[in-house]
Amino acid sequence: MSDTVNRQILLAEKPSGKLGLEHFKQTSSAPPSPRDGEVLLKVRYISLDAANRAWMHGATYRSAVEANTVMAGGGIAEVVDSKASGFAPGDIVFADTGWQDYAALPAKQLTKLPRIEPLSHLLSVFGIAGLTAYFGLLDVGKPKAGETVAVSAAAGSVGSIVGQIAKIKGCRVIGIAGGKDKCNWLTGELGFDAAVDYKDGATFKALRAAAPDGIDVYFDNVGGDILEACLSLMNLRGRIACCGAISQYDGVPSAHGPRGVPGLIVVKRLIMQGFIVMDFMDQRERAIADLQGWVASGRLKVQEDIIDGLENTPRALIGLLAGENRGKRMVRL
Amino acid sequence: MSDTVNRQILLAEKPSGKLGLEHFKQTSSAPPSPRDGEVLLKVRYISLDAANRAWMHGATYRSAVEANTVMAGGGIAEVVDSKASGFAPGDIVFADTGWQDYAALPAKQLTKLPRIEPLSHLLSVFGIAGLTAYFGLLDVGKPKAGETVAVSAAAGSVGSIVGQIAKIKGCRVIGIAGGKDKCNWLTGELGFDAAVDYKDGATFKALRAAAPDGIDVYFDNVGGDILEACLSLMNLRGRIACCGAISQYDGVPSAHGPRGVPGLIVVKRLIMQGFIVMDFMDQRERAIADLQGWVASGRLKVQEDIIDGLENTPRALIGLLAGENRGKRMVRL
Repeated sequence: MSDTVNRQILLAEKPSGKLGLEHFKQTSSAPPSPRDGEVLLKVRYISLDAANRAWMHGATYRSAVEANTVMAGGGIAEVVDSKASGFAPGDIVFADTGWQDYAALPAKQLTKLPRIEPLSHLLSVFGIAGLTAYFGLLDVGKPKAGETVAVSAAAGSVGSIVGQIAKIKGCRVIGIAGGKDKCNWLTGELGFDAAVDYKDGATFKALRAAAPDGIDVYFDNVGGDILEACLSLMNLRGRIACCGAISQYDGVPSAHGPRGVPGLIVVKRLIMQGFIVMDFMDQRERAIADLQGWVASGRLKVQEDIIDGLENTPRALIGLLAGENRGKRMVRL
Repeated sequence: MSDTVNRQILLAEKPSGKLGLEHFKQTSSAPPSPRDGEVLLKVRYISLDAANRAWMHGATYRSAVEANTVMAGGGIAEVVDSKASGFAPGDIVFADTGWQDYAALPAKQLTKLPRIEPLSHLLSVFGIAGLTAYFGLLDVGKPKAGETVAVSAAAGSVGSIVGQIAKIKGCRVIGIAGGKDKCNWLTGELGFDAAVDYKDGATFKALRAAAPDGIDVYFDNVGGDILEACLSLMNLRGRIACCGAISQYDGVPSAHGPRGVPGLIVVKRLIMQGFIVMDFMDQRERAIADLQGWVASGRLKVQEDIIDGLENTPRALIGLLAGENRGKRMVRL
């Protein structure tokens, strides 16, 4: 591999406000050599997630990404060289490869995956996005047939799957998304019962009109004003699955939380529960089996937003934070 | 009963800011006559609770108290006349009697209680306060031995019992209360491990010093800044039992909720759960049996703050909202 180059994208500087291209820089060097117990990976797809931005703020459920290190990020990769038992060239894995062509990682940091076609599905419906939607909705939100489920960032990788699973489970589903096109897509293509365009102003009014019987389960990807609006509309003993707070990631986090905390939580006996998908990985098999069944039968549509070229990864993340993607955004190398 | 007078205290006007004596007025008339299916009650003790203030804002878990009606409130009362089967003169009941000497109420709105001495215990440790502490801590907060439990309004009727039950369950207990005297009482008399005086400024720092291992269960009676401080100190998979939001009841509710919602809820996988004691009434027997055992063995100290005279009820509530009580405040008629 002596003539092979490993391009890397570094976080050049931690953003204090809005993330921009100036916070990244590209370098290149020789690919790393795997040490004993390590595997050399060729990265095939890099996942873009709102959480990438949160990692720049400080330690979250993982340590912070520091300036002048390779930007962290999950990816689908192929084993090209192995000094670890259990891994052989050609194996497909998920790992935090970072934004680069090659990574040498200890075997214990890898999750071996089946080689399916298209491979991109391992990042979308059968990957973190699909599993986050599955566990967050079913194990945290616990919707019952006939209940009303609302989901924010509904046209995104997780939200678009949350809404479809909720429909499969017999719920009335309201998606909250930015822009008419996305809203039309949610109701027209994905079968959502209603969609609310938060860029249209009057979000609370539109949401109230879309949820005449109130909201039983709110799958929150955004926090902020939309969480506040949903809190007001929650039914008695409603559940809020706290998945993320996109509205707070890019730029200066808001000085305050949503009104109604804790007053409405008490009065309505709500449960707000935070979760991350890693907490449920022991139940991955069951989830994948369900998701595969729904995809095979056409009840769950897979939407991917694939951008080519490592050099486009910073732009892809910035665009994702601005809400320009529909479904799962990833970069193909 | 023709020469008997029924004194009543009405909510004269709904307060828009801080509650004052001017919002109440006292009237008197003849006691009501029970109709078929009703019981005539002589009120013995009226419970004062922060929730009384919340009822003036609007509908909560009960309908709002309207201007020019008898102020609502729970009380211990004795049956003096009965036109309902199952109730006879001399029976002791708990009911929403309102702030008055006599009330005629349908039998189905009454909870028959044993005649114990002192009767006041039916409003404190064996009443709503004790049951709220019991179910909120054990069934919502779910503390494990060795964990750290924090409770706000810790010198109040509920908080003082929450902390003692947490000690009985083998937890490290931190009380948050207003003033040095209350704090000294919590650690000196009730066996709390530490107490934080929120009137002393620097609440967050003091709380962090008192909870070097973080907080696993936070029993929240107050909301606002103290909830925000506790959120920052919660451990992974911590539980917040949302019991009330005293800080928001009297005066203009704050414009915003606590920072860290939902960001910290996600990252730390917290559960925030609202509850009201009525939801647990089917398990009342078990709770009362436990509470009686702890009181009998001296492990749970009962603190009551009894004020005499119906005419003092408004002042008693205003003082409670200002935090002047220690333990369960009630008015004896």
